[in-house]
Amino acid sequence: MNEDSYLLPLYNRLNVSFVKGKKSVLYDEKGKDYIDFTSGIGVNSLGYCNKELVKTMEKQANKILHTSNVYHIESQEKCAKKIVELSTYDMKCFFCNSGAEANESAIKLARKYGNTAFSTPKYKIITIQNSFHGRTIATLKATAQEDKHKYFGPYPDGFIYAKDITEAINLIDDSTVAVMLELIQGEGGIYMQDVNKVKELERTLKNKKLLLIVDEVQTGVYRSGNFLMSQYFAIKPDIITLAKGLASGIPIGVMMTSLKDVLTAGDHGSTFGGNHFSTTVCNKVLDILEEYLNSGKLESNINYFNKYLDHLVDSYPKIFLQRNGWGFMKGLVLKDENKLSEIINNALENGVLVLKSGKNIIRFLPPLTISKKEIKEGFNRFEKTIQQS
Amino acid sequence: MNEDSYLLPLYNRLNVSFVKGKKSVLYDEKGKDYIDFTSGIGVNSLGYCNKELVKTMEKQANKILHTSNVYHIESQEKCAKKIVELSTYDMKCFFCNSGAEANESAIKLARKYGNTAFSTPKYKIITIQNSFHGRTIATLKATAQEDKHKYFGPYPDGFIYAKDITEAINLIDDSTVAVMLELIQGEGGIYMQDVNKVKELERTLKNKKLLLIVDEVQTGVYRSGNFLMSQYFAIKPDIITLAKGLASGIPIGVMMTSLKDVLTAGDHGSTFGGNHFSTTVCNKVLDILEEYLNSGKLESNINYFNKYLDHLVDSYPKIFLQRNGWGFMKGLVLKDENKLSEIINNALENGVLVLKSGKNIIRFLPPLTISKKEIKEGFNRFEKTIQQS
Repeated sequence: MNEDSYLLPLYNRLNVSFVKGKKSVLYDEKGKDYIDFTSGIGVNSLGYCNKELVKTMEKQANKILHTSNVYHIESQEKCAKKIVELSTYDMKCFFCNSGAEANESAIKLARKYGNTAFSTPKYKIITIQNSFHGRTIATLKATAQEDKHKYFGPYPDGFIYAKDITEAINLIDDSTVAVMLELIQGEGGIYMQDVNKVKELERTLKNKKLLLIVDEVQTGVYRSGNFLMSQYFAIKPDIITLAKGLASGIPIGVMMTSLKDVLTAGDHGSTFGGNHFSTTVCNKVLDILEEYLNSGKLESNINYFNKYLDHLVDSYPKIFLQRNGWGFMKGLVLKDENKLSEIINNALENGVLVLKSGKNIIRFLPPLTISKKEIKEGFNRFEKTIQQS
Repeated sequence: MNEDSYLLPLYNRLNVSFVKGKKSVLYDEKGKDYIDFTSGIGVNSLGYCNKELVKTMEKQANKILHTSNVYHIESQEKCAKKIVELSTYDMKCFFCNSGAEANESAIKLARKYGNTAFSTPKYKIITIQNSFHGRTIATLKATAQEDKHKYFGPYPDGFIYAKDITEAINLIDDSTVAVMLELIQGEGGIYMQDVNKVKELERTLKNKKLLLIVDEVQTGVYRSGNFLMSQYFAIKPDIITLAKGLASGIPIGVMMTSLKDVLTAGDHGSTFGGNHFSTTVCNKVLDILEEYLNSGKLESNINYFNKYLDHLVDSYPKIFLQRNGWGFMKGLVLKDENKLSEIINNALENGVLVLKSGKNIIRFLPPLTISKKEIKEGFNRFEKTIQQS
């Protein structure tokens, strides 16, 4: 876009620059407003400038941002307790700075378990086609999309790809230590796994003392309508990873696990991970979202959002095949994948932000606290866009 | 330390918890003060509660924290320009969330270059013994400390370890694409490389069109007294990585490179990386530090700090062998490695924070803006500790 830019050309950026936000509305340099159905790819869980959150940030900025994990960090302890309690699982946490780092942590934990808990070491991790687990060398190899692996080898061995969960179960062998999956594939088309298949996988793994790793980087932190999508599936994963929405815009990641003693001091760590600022912000975000869930507003607004999606699928059968996803992680499947970029660009013109997923899916990840009024206005603008297509 | 903790036991934490900081002093729950010679392992470059920085954070928190890299982000553009200008190199930047992620980015770039720019693909990266490049699977394997590689394999092939730069030069073969090193090894004993050896390495690599990757995660951002340690060495690396001190406590990482066209759209990315909040904070930190360098205070205070280190080495020849390092990245080498933990713990008791490096080094990484008064008080407390040893 910009020849004079000092940034490497790694993103196909849309030609808009936001200068401020309020609730679920963003404003560009010219003052034009945009209803945000993207929340920075699931990050801004509280939208923009939530008053309580701003106050928390101001207060913490006036105390302390960061100390090393060489010292005890009270807000990190509190944050871990909060996350574990909300999850309802008997787990412990490790803090890092992104979803990729959380998944790296999960892979390291699974491998140490596989390399130490059995008489014959196990190291293979099975992942599912069209998954996305991150951009580091190992998480990129864990991502089962062969076209993404072109330039950056050699990759670590030990990642096996299954086309679906049934095949994943069949691929388990003596060197398998874990299956890693997203319950809804975020980049792979907002595709939700079948609950019974996932439960069968869970049983199979438990019987063999192998691990179920659930990547909830996009589905977690109330995105599904529950704190975790795993809770809705009524499964008990051995490892869960979280990131995006945890601190509503401050970089943070978490790997949580029921394997409390496998990793020991020195096995892993992070300089920034779990610092005073990010965990204090995270604590406030979780408090606000817990209350929001309990108020019934989250469910009510998800249902309200669904009605607009259903209306679009019903009203424009030449354009949409169906709606995908769950909670506030939704997709509209296009009949013609060539229309994907055009619709996203025109939506931007009309003042509503949407994302893509896979080749032919419009992805919706609104702030969790989006209001009915904002939803209505956003879909008015989006429907206008569809009528122009 | 805490049986009831919800945190995985990954750190040997010291029994202290800080609740606030002011300049280069931290305070625990009981109000006891500690002179900070650690800055959160080189992170808190401006110390604590720098007024201008707090104001910047407050202002930005009231505007916008995060949008996706799908959109143009003005503060990210500005931050890239600032970093490149301060570096004096003709480079472009990629933003991520940590030093590990910055080094992953460097490895990916080097490998794509190696796999595409030559008739026979090159993929090997040579690293130096006792290096530390991160905790992800690939950066851990890049870290040339075999004892760190025990549990987490299989690792990616393609990392070769040299005992020093001379051996690194000798190990270059037809499949080598890069040499990656720290100019001062942060975890490996505050060991500074020889300038002439590094220049010989640079020449050798340039002649073969191979890459010099300099990991400035700890040495960068004025830690050395220059913006980059590479500037002091008067070398022109092909890739430089930065993190720790960039935003004085907000997670951020940067990979900068003169290879502006090797990575293209879709090759790499980050959800949080380079967002409005972290880059706005980084811009302010860099402005303040640039002015601080130009005022002469940074150099003057480094010299003042050195005098105390020299005094300790001269006065306690039974305890210290020598002083290591450069700028505000310093080490005192102990004769007896068994004294390391004892001295760090006693220093804490006496109200001064220091770190370890390697097996027998006391590491000093004070906030860059530490005052002479704080330096004096910190060393009074540290000398008291030494007299007790």
